[in-house]
Amino acid sequence: MARNVTGPEIEQLIKLISKLPGLGPRSARRAALHLIKKKDQVMVPLASALNEAIEKIVECSVCGNVDTSNPCSICTDERRDRSLICVVESVGDLWALERAEVIKGQYHVLGGTLSPLDGIGPEDLRLGKLIERASETEVTEVLLALNVTVEGQSTAHYITEQLIPLGVKTSRLAHGVPVGGELDYLDEGTLAAAIKARKEL
Amino acid sequence: MARNVTGPEIEQLIKLISKLPGLGPRSARRAALHLIKKKDQVMVPLASALNEAIEKIVECSVCGNVDTSNPCSICTDERRDRSLICVVESVGDLWALERAEVIKGQYHVLGGTLSPLDGIGPEDLRLGKLIERASETEVTEVLLALNVTVEGQSTAHYITEQLIPLGVKTSRLAHGVPVGGELDYLDEGTLAAAIKARKEL
Repeated sequence: MARNVTGPEIEQLIKLISKLPGLGPRSARRAALHLIKKKDQVMVPLASALNEAIEKIVECSVCGNVDTSNPCSICTDERRDRSLICVVESVGDLWALERAEVIKGQYHVLGGTLSPLDGIGPEDLRLGKLIERASETEVTEVLLALNVTVEGQSTAHYITEQLIPLGVKTSRLAHGVPVGGELDYLDEGTLAAAIKARKEL
Repeated sequence: MARNVTGPEIEQLIKLISKLPGLGPRSARRAALHLIKKKDQVMVPLASALNEAIEKIVECSVCGNVDTSNPCSICTDERRDRSLICVVESVGDLWALERAEVIKGQYHVLGGTLSPLDGIGPEDLRLGKLIERASETEVTEVLLALNVTVEGQSTAHYITEQLIPLGVKTSRLAHGVPVGGELDYLDEGTLAAAIKARKEL
């Protein structure tokens, strides 16, 4: 690491910015300088947005989403379908599905995937709450929208087994060629899945 | 732009983070999520570091550096050589030179370069203050450590002309092959400069 060339306040700011994903020490310095230069336009509003977020944002005790209310605005939205629970790994995945406006039902954020090597077992995920929610009579389908990784798929398999006694339908996302995807750039696994699940025209 | 899928507080936070250099909307969302997840470890300390920076950081009225004191700690450091002023375009450049520990003298931050097309003239840079500082009897050399760009070099040329009447020595950084640089990856201009300024062994 380079030696500190500024006062402790600026160094502390750079250090904290560099903890954000996607920012290294160099880009954190650039970001800190930008903040200092644009004090009134960027630094002051950012500080107040952070203070507001610290004060107001809570985790939804039902689904695990983050919002300013608990239960969150998705869980309390009367217009949403209560028969479908879409299970995702993280809040980022929930946001991605919400941006696509493709889920009319509820969500359930696991907070990770099973990973025995990292010591992450069922009790480390929000699985008990999922079983509890899936047991409610109005729930008819649990869509496991987990990442198509080894961890994601083995977690989906585990959850499916847990849900069998409840008699609830489980489903997963379709695998295939992404819209806009070029075959030349796709891996063999995706191509094999797309061919296996081919549709008649 | 994607539609908002979270509350206004989180959206505002994402919007402000995305204004930092090097962060787009997608990485800003990831950074915001990271902050929310690591509330006590990252978000709270970052908010307080920003508040402290807002409160304490000022621009040095002598050299244009940013610090918590005015004049800054470099300008008031008695151990530094007062006969040399190193002129840089930005505070980021000053930090880079300080990290390298190569300047034993003072600095002067211009705050940009002359750029007639963008309407940036001599009065938009901290040039008057530089002339004033260079007129002091203890100053014997002004090192123009400006970027080797058209704007940087024409600004250096302009400043040199302004300093002639003061009888102060002006210098610039050497051009050549960067240490660790591979010839194959260097542009013709750098190679030409390196050959022109070659040293006998």
